[in-house]
Amino acid sequence: MGPIGLVDGRIINLDEKVAVMEDRGYQFGDGVYEVTRVYNGRPFALKSHMDRLYRSLRELRIPAVYTFEELAGFHRRLIEESGLDSAAIYLQITRGAAPRAHAFPENVVPCLTMSIRPAKSHAELRAAGAKIVFVPDERWLRCDIKSINLLANLLAKQRAKEAGAYEAVQVREGIVTEGSSSNFFLVKDGVLWTHPANNLILRGVTRTIIVEKLAPQLGLTVVEKPFDAAFARKADEVFLSGTNTEIMPVALLDGDKVGDGRPGPVTSKIMEAYDALITQECGRK
Amino acid sequence: MGPIGLVDGRIINLDEKVAVMEDRGYQFGDGVYEVTRVYNGRPFALKSHMDRLYRSLRELRIPAVYTFEELAGFHRRLIEESGLDSAAIYLQITRGAAPRAHAFPENVVPCLTMSIRPAKSHAELRAAGAKIVFVPDERWLRCDIKSINLLANLLAKQRAKEAGAYEAVQVREGIVTEGSSSNFFLVKDGVLWTHPANNLILRGVTRTIIVEKLAPQLGLTVVEKPFDAAFARKADEVFLSGTNTEIMPVALLDGDKVGDGRPGPVTSKIMEAYDALITQECGRK
Repeated sequence: MGPIGLVDGRIINLDEKVAVMEDRGYQFGDGVYEVTRVYNGRPFALKSHMDRLYRSLRELRIPAVYTFEELAGFHRRLIEESGLDSAAIYLQITRGAAPRAHAFPENVVPCLTMSIRPAKSHAELRAAGAKIVFVPDERWLRCDIKSINLLANLLAKQRAKEAGAYEAVQVREGIVTEGSSSNFFLVKDGVLWTHPANNLILRGVTRTIIVEKLAPQLGLTVVEKPFDAAFARKADEVFLSGTNTEIMPVALLDGDKVGDGRPGPVTSKIMEAYDALITQECGRK
Repeated sequence: MGPIGLVDGRIINLDEKVAVMEDRGYQFGDGVYEVTRVYNGRPFALKSHMDRLYRSLRELRIPAVYTFEELAGFHRRLIEESGLDSAAIYLQITRGAAPRAHAFPENVVPCLTMSIRPAKSHAELRAAGAKIVFVPDERWLRCDIKSINLLANLLAKQRAKEAGAYEAVQVREGIVTEGSSSNFFLVKDGVLWTHPANNLILRGVTRTIIVEKLAPQLGLTVVEKPFDAAFARKADEVFLSGTNTEIMPVALLDGDKVGDGRPGPVTSKIMEAYDALITQECGRK
């Protein structure tokens, strides 16, 4: 088949209209989302994604009206009905529809929409290393909520695109926070650095896997402390992490080579360990 | 009739589904909006609202595919078909629908949705003066764009609601910026103060009318300079401005009386001048 959607527990074509005008997702961006990768027909790290979804809902006080089992079932149905085995599943929950007014309405039913699309392959870019640019971080102060208020991220990514870069990494008051759709890591003297998971970044599922699982397994020290752009420019290695990004080595930062301009040894080890984890959980990558 | 919508030049019921899942307005908040008040069956300051709409579109590089005359015509149709003569018309344009990816897609058609609803009367509150609270300004750094990324504004307004207040006024690093859906003014020693119209606030249409038309007409000096919350707490008078808010005197700020706790003389003069302008443009208020 190919790309399809799911709404109200029903499989739909993606050109079907699903939202009323006064869905608060449509008029306010009042909703949250998750993207889960599917490898070999199986969702990877689904529990971590759904746990984060429930946290985002709690932070915005949107009622969680689906159990983990129901959501896992919807993921399975999308995989089965689409016939896609290397894919990305998008899931969004908005607060629901109500006459437009800023404060939370009473008695509204949250709206769930989901879709599945084939995954993009980044194999060539991963082998060569990606190009990134630094841009000002113009986002709000609750980046820890995975909300659909993504305009600042869009503008950042568009800047990357226009610079011929894979990603725009955001810098707030001199401090490197994260990419427009990825987390930022650097390697300096064998130590991994990344921004602390506070209100200024999203706690990426891949980031958590690196920090809590892969780094300890590889005997790497992780420092979660703010660092500035100048420090990042002097890193031995830089890489990005994310559900779609996976582990992406960075070869060029604002046009300057990172290290020798090729994926470094620590990054390569983390890539291998991440691939091995996927194989372990999903059968093969 | 009552509340109705308009999409693709067609009048619809507000419970009709109008947006596909991958409308970028629904997945990213990638869109802009305006709200125009209708008095006596006529839109007030429509040209100013549409000028600002075009500016927002330009800032986000969303193509403007409707002329002012077309948009004015849609406003007229909504008024006629709804039979509402004291109303608010909502207009939203999103970038359009495309497979989900952050950077701007090529060849997409922007989506216009509009609705009309009866206006709320604030007459009693206006006579007594409203209650407001200060809250941290958690928004992004492009508040000058009237985008549908409004989650920070929603959270602020919800705090106001829970405090029994009419509005939450946002404070960024000590500086009073604006309300969650209104601009903030104070009067000190006969002079009007308000935050400069830079990237940290929305240049309200009502704000502009006050600064450029009513204040000169009333012989009032306007100072557009940042001021802190402590200065605001010592103001002689405080009021809010906005399309729906109109001119709203503030009686209580974080539980403390502003001035003598009643609408002050300068605020009252501005309210009268604003009402007179509406009567002049729309026949009567």
